[in-house]
Amino acid sequence: MATIFSKIIAGEIPSFKIAENDHFYAFLDIFPLVKGHVLVVPKVEVDKFFDVSDDLLSEWLVFAKPIAKAIESSFPCNRCGISVVGLEVPHAHMHLVPINGADDLNFTRHKLKLSEEELKEIQATIVAKLS
Amino acid sequence: MATIFSKIIAGEIPSFKIAENDHFYAFLDIFPLVKGHVLVVPKVEVDKFFDVSDDLLSEWLVFAKPIAKAIESSFPCNRCGISVVGLEVPHAHMHLVPINGADDLNFTRHKLKLSEEELKEIQATIVAKLS
Repeated sequence: MATIFSKIIAGEIPSFKIAENDHFYAFLDIFPLVKGHVLVVPKVEVDKFFDVSDDLLSEWLVFAKPIAKAIESSFPCNRCGISVVGLEVPHAHMHLVPINGADDLNFTRHKLKLSEEELKEIQATIVAKLS
Repeated sequence: MATIFSKIIAGEIPSFKIAENDHFYAFLDIFPLVKGHVLVVPKVEVDKFFDVSDDLLSEWLVFAKPIAKAIESSFPCNRCGISVVGLEVPHAHMHLVPINGADDLNFTRHKLKLSEEELKEIQATIVAKLS
């Protein structure tokens, strides 16, 4: 059965898309730790991050870099952090999060609940910086 | 002035080395979140992770992969997680941490204090799995 991320990539579930290429898809986490929290996933379904092929691993951070730069310049932060946890969805994914402190990458804390309007605005802000 | 990581790479500060190649150095975090917590750093000094060159970014995860696999098979865990925070040492670095829950990647919690003997044993366990 397709993972929720595969359904998002296929357009069967709507998402706030940030960027896409042949192998990766980036979109807003709709339950973000902070505003500007983006997920980067490979289009191929692999559960564990380090089971992803070397070819895709070598492309992953290069794909993420301009997105991280756009996030860094869109939200007040020290820098864009990374987290790979992966205990909830069996489809490898990387969190890009603008951080000011270690707690901004703490996945045990409460997530934000943003309106569709707020998410659209965040999406537009990041996408504008990318282009 | 050289960062603490550059001094570790140069051997001026001792470390529990896990692996090394021309561009990267991996060693135990001596204040680990859990046993098996490893740091991966590029030999070149760059503060922010996403300011690292595309060439090095494309090598980073491929270098980390066998280390992550060795960590996964050395400690009881669901998988090896990743965190890039980078607010304390101005030399880009990636944390590889064997995780069973999101709190195992929570950098706001107390770190373990391990003896040199315990760290040596962890180092030997991971290195044995690598070779």
